[in-house]
Amino acid sequence: MNVRFATSNRHKFEEASRIASKFGLRLEWLKGERIEIQGEELGEIAEYSLRSIPRRYDPVFVEDAGLFIRALNWFPGPYSSYVFGKLGNRGILKLMEGIDDRYAEFRSAVALRFRGFVAIFFGVAKGSIAFEERGRHGFGFDPIFVPEGSELTFSELGEAKDRYSHRAKSIASLSRFLLHRTF
Amino acid sequence: MNVRFATSNRHKFEEASRIASKFGLRLEWLKGERIEIQGEELGEIAEYSLRSIPRRYDPVFVEDAGLFIRALNWFPGPYSSYVFGKLGNRGILKLMEGIDDRYAEFRSAVALRFRGFVAIFFGVAKGSIAFEERGRHGFGFDPIFVPEGSELTFSELGEAKDRYSHRAKSIASLSRFLLHRTF
Repeated sequence: MNVRFATSNRHKFEEASRIASKFGLRLEWLKGERIEIQGEELGEIAEYSLRSIPRRYDPVFVEDAGLFIRALNWFPGPYSSYVFGKLGNRGILKLMEGIDDRYAEFRSAVALRFRGFVAIFFGVAKGSIAFEERGRHGFGFDPIFVPEGSELTFSELGEAKDRYSHRAKSIASLSRFLLHRTF
Repeated sequence: MNVRFATSNRHKFEEASRIASKFGLRLEWLKGERIEIQGEELGEIAEYSLRSIPRRYDPVFVEDAGLFIRALNWFPGPYSSYVFGKLGNRGILKLMEGIDDRYAEFRSAVALRFRGFVAIFFGVAKGSIAFEERGRHGFGFDPIFVPEGSELTFSELGEAKDRYSHRAKSIASLSRFLLHRTF
């Protein structure tokens, strides 16, 4: 079974493809920018974004993800991509200087159109903000996020990131739904 | 002449009313949240937001503003309101620690619907980021922004902020257009 993934982010597409393929689901890349609303809720942002894709694409999904840091009032959250582009990992590390509470979560929301209906799937990875950038793989905030159960950052983990990641969970739910109609 | 200002921000409404009244324009407050898209261009965000207001409101305008800091790649920009809520002035001061280039701009974009058409008006205030919060008036990043030509922050300036502010310029253009059809 094939399903389209609408994203402008090559890294996201490759990561999602790797995860989905383990379930026997093949992803096709639907490139291009979509409209994203400002908001605090990833599911809502993803659903709105999905609705801007022509209805002839079905099944198709979008994914919105963010890093939520407790000590920063859950900043950068839904604006992670923008904030990463402006401040990078160093900006986050600077904001976290002198702060003991390092708890953070990566969250992912997938919005799927399937036979004209919309379904939303979520995934969360709990963890903490490292004290420095570590690792060469992945993208975005991967070098500063250490998932629970690991000593390594997402970036150091490489493909083993999928054992812990928010995106692996949401894409797994999507795959199970499409292939077996079960969450 | 009356015109509606659609905003959920009481401070913005009061400030804009004060400015417009000097031109003889009276603002009415149209409260409530509107859809804002994610983007880097204030005019585009404001125009999109305007289109989510029912067409029976005419004339009506929205305003989108942001603080753009050069040394932070123009962060927080269009996401200023969100970032202020999460990090506050202290977060910005922390990001600016050890940085000599303090240059920043406040930008404002007004999108007006008038007789069914849309017009956009801009205003910019050049200035710099202070080294600490100063002043009690205004809102948002006002306590850390010093406009060119002043030693005081927007917050210390109180109503005298209108002599320098981005919003005073965009609302002045709006007022001249509505009252005299001239920019």
